[in-house]
Amino acid sequence: MRQYPKPLNKLINELSKLPGIGGKTAQRLAFHILALEESEATALANSIVNAKRSLHYCSVCGNLTDTDPCEICSDESRDRTKVCVVETPQDVIAMERVREFKGLYHVLHGAISPVEGIGPNEINLKSLITRLQQHDEVGEIIVATNPNIEGEATAMYIARLLKPSGIKVTRIAHGIPVGGDLEYADEVTLLKAMEGRREI
Amino acid sequence: MRQYPKPLNKLINELSKLPGIGGKTAQRLAFHILALEESEATALANSIVNAKRSLHYCSVCGNLTDTDPCEICSDESRDRTKVCVVETPQDVIAMERVREFKGLYHVLHGAISPVEGIGPNEINLKSLITRLQQHDEVGEIIVATNPNIEGEATAMYIARLLKPSGIKVTRIAHGIPVGGDLEYADEVTLLKAMEGRREI
Repeated sequence: MRQYPKPLNKLINELSKLPGIGGKTAQRLAFHILALEESEATALANSIVNAKRSLHYCSVCGNLTDTDPCEICSDESRDRTKVCVVETPQDVIAMERVREFKGLYHVLHGAISPVEGIGPNEINLKSLITRLQQHDEVGEIIVATNPNIEGEATAMYIARLLKPSGIKVTRIAHGIPVGGDLEYADEVTLLKAMEGRREI
Repeated sequence: MRQYPKPLNKLINELSKLPGIGGKTAQRLAFHILALEESEATALANSIVNAKRSLHYCSVCGNLTDTDPCEICSDESRDRTKVCVVETPQDVIAMERVREFKGLYHVLHGAISPVEGIGPNEINLKSLITRLQQHDEVGEIIVATNPNIEGEATAMYIARLLKPSGIKVTRIAHGIPVGGDLEYADEVTLLKAMEGRREI
């Protein structure tokens, strides 16, 4: 069967390696790119290479950054007594969107998952311990890993790990999402919501 | 609100300019790209620049190609008495997939659309006329533009344009798609299917 010219096939092939981009979408994107001005196509290509080259993980918290330490870690106005532990850099942005938490972060880049063979050494956890040893001003660790099996296991592991140190370890609350519908909530969430009930 | 580091924001921004890629998808793609090996990210970036630089339109038929004339136009085994007129390079690939048509192509890069201000001079039509004047072996023009208002208008225009030349102009058949369901066919398609009925 006749194929597209090689450079176009190559582009379609590269694009279809991206997650959620199938053959048809890759083809559509490729034709869109061909219709761009050369400067626009170059800008797209450069942004890929540039992001890949200049971004790395913060040596303190593990967040994605183009400086070191990252902006949050080097921000003197942040509350250095609280560290919020999250799974991914995306979670940091989600937390920051709330504009409520003014402490620091620690990004694990994953969660403990015995099923997938991911143990405590496979995530960015050891650096949290050395960080806490170096900075004894930290009084509370807020574990904001995802509310699933892996996230809960990770939270439990961190709680037990830090028990001897006397640092308070807290977990974000589970419950019915605001605007959510009780009728459609799953049993586990509803159970957590009941367990976490508070006097009003 | 805190943002991602600049190079990451730039990448998300560039990706979200692509058609069908919203903010959330662009973010997901960007993080996927950051997780790639540097060589993989470079391959993606290079394929964009390379496709953009090395591909152009065939000077004969207007198809996308990295050679000139394109592979099909320079293929001596193809039937030079038939030219199939299509709207896009994607349509050429679709036709080739059928493995039935062995003639040549002419890619219009669009269709006549008075509503959008696209007249006969805005599409690659003039070159078809000069091409027919230079190659008097062409005996049939098969118009395979899309079966919509613009495609039909274009087909009619080409038919009238070529009437004086005596070249046969044909139009691909409309009807119920194979595997399609009569119940769900729209009226116009069904009408076309009735009009195009043949003795069996």
